[in-house]
Amino acid sequence: MKISFENDYSQSAHPAILKALAEDAESKYSGYGVDPLSDRAAERIREACKAPNALVQFVVGGTQCNSLLIDIALRSFEGVVCADTGHINVHEAGAIEFTGHKVIGFPSTLGKITAEQVEAVGLANRTEPQPGHVVEPKMVYLSQPTEVGTLYSLEELTAISKACRDNDLYLYVDGARMSYALASEYNDVTLEDLARLTDAFYIGGTKCGMLIGEALVVLNDSFKPHFFSYQKQHTAHLAKGWLLGLQFETLFKDGLYVEIAKKADRQAMRIRDAFVAAGVKEFLPSPTNQQFFILTEEQFERFSEKYVIGKFMMIEEGLWAVRFCTSWYTKDEEVDTLCKDIPVLVG
Amino acid sequence: MKISFENDYSQSAHPAILKALAEDAESKYSGYGVDPLSDRAAERIREACKAPNALVQFVVGGTQCNSLLIDIALRSFEGVVCADTGHINVHEAGAIEFTGHKVIGFPSTLGKITAEQVEAVGLANRTEPQPGHVVEPKMVYLSQPTEVGTLYSLEELTAISKACRDNDLYLYVDGARMSYALASEYNDVTLEDLARLTDAFYIGGTKCGMLIGEALVVLNDSFKPHFFSYQKQHTAHLAKGWLLGLQFETLFKDGLYVEIAKKADRQAMRIRDAFVAAGVKEFLPSPTNQQFFILTEEQFERFSEKYVIGKFMMIEEGLWAVRFCTSWYTKDEEVDTLCKDIPVLVG
Amino acid sequence: MKISFENDYSQSAHPAILKALAEDAESKYSGYGVDPLSDRAAERIREACKAPNALVQFVVGGTQCNSLLIDIALRSFEGVVCADTGHINVHEAGAIEFTGHKVIGFPSTLGKITAEQVEAVGLANRTEPQPGHVVEPKMVYLSQPTEVGTLYSLEELTAISKACRDNDLYLYVDGARMSYALASEYNDVTLEDLARLTDAFYIGGTKCGMLIGEALVVLNDSFKPHFFSYQKQHTAHLAKGWLLGLQFETLFKDGLYVEIAKKADRQAMRIRDAFVAAGVKEFLPSPTNQQFFILTEEQFERFSEKYVIGKFMMIEEGLWAVRFCTSWYTKDEEVDTLCKDIPVLVG
Amino acid sequence: MKISFENDYSQSAHPAILKALAEDAESKYSGYGVDPLSDRAAERIREACKAPNALVQFVVGGTQCNSLLIDIALRSFEGVVCADTGHINVHEAGAIEFTGHKVIGFPSTLGKITAEQVEAVGLANRTEPQPGHVVEPKMVYLSQPTEVGTLYSLEELTAISKACRDNDLYLYVDGARMSYALASEYNDVTLEDLARLTDAFYIGGTKCGMLIGEALVVLNDSFKPHFFSYQKQHTAHLAKGWLLGLQFETLFKDGLYVEIAKKADRQAMRIRDAFVAAGVKEFLPSPTNQQFFILTEEQFERFSEKYVIGKFMMIEEGLWAVRFCTSWYTKDEEVDTLCKDIPVLVG
Repeated sequence: MKISFENDYSQSAHPAILKALAEDAESKYSGYGVDPLSDRAAERIREACKAPNALVQFVVGGTQCNSLLIDIALRSFEGVVCADTGHINVHEAGAIEFTGHKVIGFPSTLGKITAEQVEAVGLANRTEPQPGHVVEPKMVYLSQPTEVGTLYSLEELTAISKACRDNDLYLYVDGARMSYALASEYNDVTLEDLARLTDAFYIGGTKCGMLIGEALVVLNDSFKPHFFSYQKQHTAHLAKGWLLGLQFETLFKDGLYVEIAKKADRQAMRIRDAFVAAGVKEFLPSPTNQQFFILTEEQFERFSEKYVIGKFMMIEEGLWAVRFCTSWYTKDEEVDTLCKDIPVLVG
Repeated sequence: MKISFENDYSQSAHPAILKALAEDAESKYSGYGVDPLSDRAAERIREACKAPNALVQFVVGGTQCNSLLIDIALRSFEGVVCADTGHINVHEAGAIEFTGHKVIGFPSTLGKITAEQVEAVGLANRTEPQPGHVVEPKMVYLSQPTEVGTLYSLEELTAISKACRDNDLYLYVDGARMSYALASEYNDVTLEDLARLTDAFYIGGTKCGMLIGEALVVLNDSFKPHFFSYQKQHTAHLAKGWLLGLQFETLFKDGLYVEIAKKADRQAMRIRDAFVAAGVKEFLPSPTNQQFFILTEEQFERFSEKYVIGKFMMIEEGLWAVRFCTSWYTKDEEVDTLCKDIPVLVG
Repeated sequence: MKISFENDYSQSAHPAILKALAEDAESKYSGYGVDPLSDRAAERIREACKAPNALVQFVVGGTQCNSLLIDIALRSFEGVVCADTGHINVHEAGAIEFTGHKVIGFPSTLGKITAEQVEAVGLANRTEPQPGHVVEPKMVYLSQPTEVGTLYSLEELTAISKACRDNDLYLYVDGARMSYALASEYNDVTLEDLARLTDAFYIGGTKCGMLIGEALVVLNDSFKPHFFSYQKQHTAHLAKGWLLGLQFETLFKDGLYVEIAKKADRQAMRIRDAFVAAGVKEFLPSPTNQQFFILTEEQFERFSEKYVIGKFMMIEEGLWAVRFCTSWYTKDEEVDTLCKDIPVLVG
Repeated sequence: MKISFENDYSQSAHPAILKALAEDAESKYSGYGVDPLSDRAAERIREACKAPNALVQFVVGGTQCNSLLIDIALRSFEGVVCADTGHINVHEAGAIEFTGHKVIGFPSTLGKITAEQVEAVGLANRTEPQPGHVVEPKMVYLSQPTEVGTLYSLEELTAISKACRDNDLYLYVDGARMSYALASEYNDVTLEDLARLTDAFYIGGTKCGMLIGEALVVLNDSFKPHFFSYQKQHTAHLAKGWLLGLQFETLFKDGLYVEIAKKADRQAMRIRDAFVAAGVKEFLPSPTNQQFFILTEEQFERFSEKYVIGKFMMIEEGLWAVRFCTSWYTKDEEVDTLCKDIPVLVG
């Protein structure tokens, strides 16, 4: 049986969650997130974010978070700016446009956009010769970590947040893999920072140890009214909403959420070192659990005989950016085996 | 602690599912429903439906099933006809209209529409003096059991199906509580009948013993292409898709899906008999797990002190249709207690 | 050549408009309604409505007015209530649903809904057991005259307006044939009343003497921001916007708008009297330019040999409600001929 | 009074159209484009395109053409590729996204994209590692002339068309200013070429001598069914549809459509020569009626005292691309005056 570095959502849930689920099997709750488990989980997240007034709402998946929050925040003619590699721009099959909003992809470096680009959006909004004829960019979307595993530093994020506020733009952060950001030794951005610097962000669960579930943290008061109705209409309500609360409550107890990601990040660093040592080029330097290397078709196939991995992007005919992904469930022995194999399989 | 007859989605999942989940905790799968568990569950459902060519796709919730299937099936100017009490007409916060389609509610009796009404739709389509200016009704939506627990007989369903086919209309059946229909002693409609008579239907899991999940069974070939893309854009894809497959495989083994609903239906009949014996009027006669009785505000409050129940509809000022709902997790002793209390609390 | 009573948009424009157009043929204007002609027309309409703060915006057609205004006014999960015969419910091919909003048709008498029905909507909103799961009706739409030519009295409209305000609902009036309402001897509702009693309404041009064009009168301040952008995104902006201003300025000079409709209403009354005298049943009593009579298929065909008329609705197999429509361009001699023919052709 | 080079839609309509309108003032027609004038105009256009099977449908404005045709052609998850400067990407306030489709802007040179870029789209579609997760580009949109006045040569267009067909992509051409392309001495693309090489295109009227109106020419059979219904739902139907037919019939008689644009193109060349002679830099070389020059804020203001012109884009702080636009109604003397002023006002 192959060893999987395919992604971070290939295995069920962290044992602590399965245990909590088993123990709670006979409890009764009202539906649609109106239950004490959801309330407690929300409270725990507000505490972790030091954001006592935040609205915390649980949703099933990341695309749903993005689709829902962006549609609530923006008027129909307003658009959202992101890195050209951003998830909403490339991997949601047009879910944002499906709700009527333009996604405007910007050239990015290492999956990131800059405060200067945000400033330029503001300048363009102010100097537009034909306002009313154009989509008005009104929100900046970014991911932490990004789609390619990189991190915004606190300095970068602070500058972007300032640029947003100076230019009347919202800032929204997609945290599908937030635990791997928080756990990285290269990271200096906390949940508290995110709550302070953004209008909304979400904390991923699906890729971070849960069966399913993400937590939307809404800071901007203007996004809060009628959230339930919007969520229902977007088909983003789970009947058994407490299942999401239970899982977040479990992961946000005693720092488990970050703890289980630390191991994965360390494993990723080992894989990176092994590839670099074997003379393989990184697609880009990533400090989190997703690692990308440039492999030939032949190399990819040799690795694929023993490992489940995925092509991320074609660099040129026969040359691929290939992803090796660790996760909370990756075993150290699996990494040992891979690191031993790398010099051999690279060939 | 109160006894809950609030609904059929107040408790986790059937022990067989929790067991399967625990045993599968270390398995690895590819994402988004491309996995052997989903394949096996789909195959099992195709067999149960005797529909070897059906596309079976797993989705998180019922509103998602409806929103997704209807949007795939209909052109933007085509509408869907249903009972005025239909879930898509009253309890989805406009999710169908959100994707651009008109929902046309028809007067219903006991939550059901008739083949005659469907014929009338066809006649109106053919005699419309201004075709092109009107929404063209193109699909008939119904639920089995209906929103109010009643059942279409095989005769009724066959007549509706014939009326649909004679008039070039699609037939789609919402089976959020399908197990309680299949389990009812009053029922004569099988999954095989549904596969034969409809263009698509879904088999509910959330209310029928699963944590989450519904299975869309797509018979009409014209709905099948690009299903994955539509599902993604509708935010209706679960990253850990195999979780849905695992649950359906479990429930469709050895008839467990229907077995666990039988008890609930029997309990419902006992509750019905106790209310009727106490001189309380049924809101309507329901042969499945949802029972509705007409109670005064005072009666509702007396029951509410000991039981979790819900108002369904205001009949008039101070008079309510109140729902008592059994489920796969309702205990016989809970029903014993209720039946003993009914004559007392009715007052 | 047949005489046309087909509708009120079968002929070009009133001579005064064609003259104004010819005289203005060499003028230059900026585009998209930012021009002095549009400003002057808007001012004239504000004066006629005694509504100095109204936003008056010109749009090409009636369906565009409805689609644009309703989408601006409502949140995505909010719905609009109307008579089941309302234009948005039956003759716009789902244009309102296309922008995501539910249209909720109510049983109507003579094409009208009542203040009592509006009160009932408010009561239902307040007592809804599952708010957040349902579309929230938030606007009442009606037409003056209605789709079938009838009129709301000032008393009826005042009661509906009060019911709307008491129940936190918007009131919007579709005035596609407004001139024929204002001109009717049975009418007691002025533009000033409409401006006082509604949140928005539109004054029709296309059917009232213009080539194209309608004037949206927006009273509610919350509908006003970003109107230009919404209009552009809805494809509801005319590049040569001044063409609409020019036409409205012409018709709102010296009462021409109402004057030319008076003749049409009088002609309609003559037609009505002639049919009634011939023993033909009215479909309903209409005090404006649209008259509906119940004719057999044979009668319809006899009339159709000499007149262009249209079937409105099938009453039963072989029996139709047929419309005879006068307009600003109907000649008295054409009505003379028809009135003479009626007893003969009725047979 | 200032001389206007603001745009090509600042004046009413060509005298031949106003005359035809005046002469037809008393005719009667059925509504919504079902009339002999529309039929004749469509036939004339089919002949000009040598496309006997084309569906020709008249629409009010260019944004409506684009929104309607693209929404009819594409499935909801399919996207449309265009130059980053394309009208649908920058000047329609998100009208395409409003109907749910992603617009994908590509880097362009002189407002044009290339067959190589189209080939790359096809390659990306075929090698996409995660089909189903991404928007599938399915249509190429371009304008002739482009948003900045440039022209695709027949060689370029043929190559793009071939690339589209080889890669299963539709080709759609926006011809808002088509007459100025056809009239240009630099042009070698005919209507017949467009009908042969594209799946659909539209022939602009609003900017080419008409009051309002554009003609959609639909070649691909799969776009034709239910066109009327889609058009109605998109609010893109004109009640007095024959007004559009009348205008196109007039312009497509004896080559008037192209004839009146020739003068405008020649005038544009004179303006270009005068600016170049005065040492002003062209923003880009345009062979049609729109000319763009790079002026300082001061120069722009000097010109603005005597001429109505518009800023197109900010090049840098204080430096603008400014548009001088000729049209069918521009007088030679106005160009004489401008050409004399240019060396003086450039300063």
